[in-house]
Amino acid sequence: MKRTNVAELLSSDKFLQEVTLKGWVRTFRANRFIALNDGSTINNIQCVVDFENTDESILKRITTGAAVSIKGTLVESLGRGQNMEVKVSTIEILGDSNPEEYPIQPKKHSFEFLRENAHLRIRTNTFSAVMRLRSALSFAVHNYFIKNGFYNFHAPIITGSDAEGAGEMFNVTTLDVENLPKKEDGKVDRSKDFFGKTTNLTVSGQLEAETYAMALGKVYTFGPTFRAENSNTTRHLSEFWMIEPEVAFNNLDDNMDLAEDFIKSVISYVLDNCKDDLAFLDNRLTQEDKSKPAAQRNEMSLLEKLNFVVENNFKRVSYTEAIDILRNCKPNKKKKFQYIINEWGADLQSEHERFLVEKHFKCPVILFDYPANIKAFYMRLNEDGKTVRAMDVLFPGIGEIVGGSQREERLDVLKQKINELNIDEKELWWYLDTRKFGTAVHSGFGLGFERLVQFTTGMGNIRDVIPYPRTPQNAEF
Amino acid sequence: MKRTNVAELLSSDKFLQEVTLKGWVRTFRANRFIALNDGSTINNIQCVVDFENTDESILKRITTGAAVSIKGTLVESLGRGQNMEVKVSTIEILGDSNPEEYPIQPKKHSFEFLRENAHLRIRTNTFSAVMRLRSALSFAVHNYFIKNGFYNFHAPIITGSDAEGAGEMFNVTTLDVENLPKKEDGKVDRSKDFFGKTTNLTVSGQLEAETYAMALGKVYTFGPTFRAENSNTTRHLSEFWMIEPEVAFNNLDDNMDLAEDFIKSVISYVLDNCKDDLAFLDNRLTQEDKSKPAAQRNEMSLLEKLNFVVENNFKRVSYTEAIDILRNCKPNKKKKFQYIINEWGADLQSEHERFLVEKHFKCPVILFDYPANIKAFYMRLNEDGKTVRAMDVLFPGIGEIVGGSQREERLDVLKQKINELNIDEKELWWYLDTRKFGTAVHSGFGLGFERLVQFTTGMGNIRDVIPYPRTPQNAEF
Repeated sequence: MKRTNVAELLSSDKFLQEVTLKGWVRTFRANRFIALNDGSTINNIQCVVDFENTDESILKRITTGAAVSIKGTLVESLGRGQNMEVKVSTIEILGDSNPEEYPIQPKKHSFEFLRENAHLRIRTNTFSAVMRLRSALSFAVHNYFIKNGFYNFHAPIITGSDAEGAGEMFNVTTLDVENLPKKEDGKVDRSKDFFGKTTNLTVSGQLEAETYAMALGKVYTFGPTFRAENSNTTRHLSEFWMIEPEVAFNNLDDNMDLAEDFIKSVISYVLDNCKDDLAFLDNRLTQEDKSKPAAQRNEMSLLEKLNFVVENNFKRVSYTEAIDILRNCKPNKKKKFQYIINEWGADLQSEHERFLVEKHFKCPVILFDYPANIKAFYMRLNEDGKTVRAMDVLFPGIGEIVGGSQREERLDVLKQKINELNIDEKELWWYLDTRKFGTAVHSGFGLGFERLVQFTTGMGNIRDVIPYPRTPQNAEF
Repeated sequence: MKRTNVAELLSSDKFLQEVTLKGWVRTFRANRFIALNDGSTINNIQCVVDFENTDESILKRITTGAAVSIKGTLVESLGRGQNMEVKVSTIEILGDSNPEEYPIQPKKHSFEFLRENAHLRIRTNTFSAVMRLRSALSFAVHNYFIKNGFYNFHAPIITGSDAEGAGEMFNVTTLDVENLPKKEDGKVDRSKDFFGKTTNLTVSGQLEAETYAMALGKVYTFGPTFRAENSNTTRHLSEFWMIEPEVAFNNLDDNMDLAEDFIKSVISYVLDNCKDDLAFLDNRLTQEDKSKPAAQRNEMSLLEKLNFVVENNFKRVSYTEAIDILRNCKPNKKKKFQYIINEWGADLQSEHERFLVEKHFKCPVILFDYPANIKAFYMRLNEDGKTVRAMDVLFPGIGEIVGGSQREERLDVLKQKINELNIDEKELWWYLDTRKFGTAVHSGFGLGFERLVQFTTGMGNIRDVIPYPRTPQNAEF
């Protein structure tokens, strides 16, 4: 008989139907009630074993984590907590789970412990909810762009160019480090490496995406990117997934509109499609809050926060306005900030961004028109000659979730900038070609996917929203 | 005025409307007719310039590749080849394209030349069609799995495990090769590397995907994978995208059903959604065929081939049957094969696979139940003790497009296999845990995305279906 999954069954009303279920035992109580989960939903189906007519040897093997196949009848439940249950006619143990050895027991495990068991943490309610949401968000990303006329562009992961300068890079090599080929001058002979030169893991697909936007009009990347930085924080990963749309003929205002519409759309998608998982995570955070001192509690629940983002306009504030606000704000005057804001031109730190978003505006904020010298070379210089058409989207609890800009489309201005920064023009010949042949205004941004997942799930540590996190000193599994 | 894209305009019937268009000039003839493309479709819109009332200095700058902004009126066209055209009222040159320097001229360029200009080849009809199809196929992949209850799983790219054995790996490091840290024994001290040990780029996300399937039920990966092999062929890339579904409780028959249904579904999707691009590529191949000797021409056109795959069942043939067919076939008896098939146990080469698919069965073929010793360690051993529940899907012109198996779910059998192959059990502790706790029958496969794109677009060289191909000695852009 065809197997039914738990999600289908729980939304069914065909009582008395015969069903076959396969899944894993979450709990087994009173020698009678199995809470069965098969991953199709966070909810378990209760399966009631006729223990008087079941072998003691079988009953003993119904333990947390065991894989079972159950045949039975769907009936209305008389017990509290569920509307339906399965009256088991036969149960087969597919795979045992020795309770003396199985690390995931039906109790609260610390996230640290679960990170060490990242291959099993997905069997818990919290992580299965987070990863189902991650999957739904991922689909919402593709769905948004495709429905809006964008083309998915697969940026190269291994790159021979290191001009982007977004961060430290990982080297990719097939040279035998115990026996390196050397040139006459004693240096390593990179011409003997796989690609005939030094190659690295990409930090961003933007420059390549720009070449495609200048032909296909609207493109987006969604792929892994890498930073070899020794950042051990709750907001950084060495390997993370990034979304980078790039649109020909869009200026910075269009870019802000796109970022805001995109974020609202993907969050709406999960609000509509992941109700059970979100309800679970919402409750989890609410419970967690209760154990905190009042001052540290969230002002909004997870669902309230998500709805707030969808329903309210992001506040758009120029860098210059933001500096004015920060210079005159209490924490600055009382020297509560670690970095005091004295003058225009200062780089904003996380503490300043959080003040603006969480205390001052109390909503997502888009900062724009930053000083040129704290931003990347490819950003469009404003007519004032000192600011660039950059934008950052700042989110409560997360900080920067999007960084983008209108790109410098003028060949002469771009070349001058590249030369000032001592970047080799030859390294970027192909990028400069986009300005040489049929250049046009264009804009794009990068969104760190894991930060979006963090925001949407309410998880505090970015290592808990990606299946197998890579961080300094950690590449297990 | 809001910009209209060409795709929208061409499907419009609102004549006499005022429109603003932005795009690139494909051709400009008779000082009057611009073929304008903006990437939204392979089709150009004809824009008619009133050359008598337009500055000579502007007319001179309307060259192939130039970016322009056009305002005008949509009118019915009297000329041949189009139903509508835009009567230009104003034209602005956004970005020039010097015809003396622009490499992409309105003539036939060789694919070799275009590969060297991979940043500009996307501005040609062929490559824009291929990459739009690639994007549509990519969305079709996500759409198929999400609609069928799968969860997208992002497998790690940097891996500390090298047990999968699917091929040679790229090393990922932040060590300074000019100044390597050494241990007392003179060997490189990998504990000083970024992750505190040797790490590589993944060759497959399967093992990690299995851990997720054993909790979420149905998962799939779709991400970049890497092979550091010195293969300079039209079917191999060093960096390519792979799709790997993994399903708990599926046996090999279910796995074959899934592979066949999946492939048919994504091809149907592009047949429905990419008619213009497919028509162009179909015609391109037909023209190309005309220049070939009759014996080398395709029996079916591209569209016929795609429809054939969607409409016909894949032929399922056991390895043992296939060996019988091959042993007795003409090219084997006449020693036309490079590798003569003498006995059961031989590994099949591309020439044998192509014979089965293209000459014998004349349809996609699924071979299954291969000898254990030519397949990977994790495949389910059959009761005969000598074959495993492996399957390969073979496609005309492409060869192997899918490789998969039912996985060995029995801890003792799996451990014995690992030990026979001298793989360190400790390396795979987490993988073995899936068999130790709640193991169950499960299956999955890997599909090389670029081979699917090759098949669907009819492109002969795999380097022409990925934006920036990485192959031995080549990591430009």
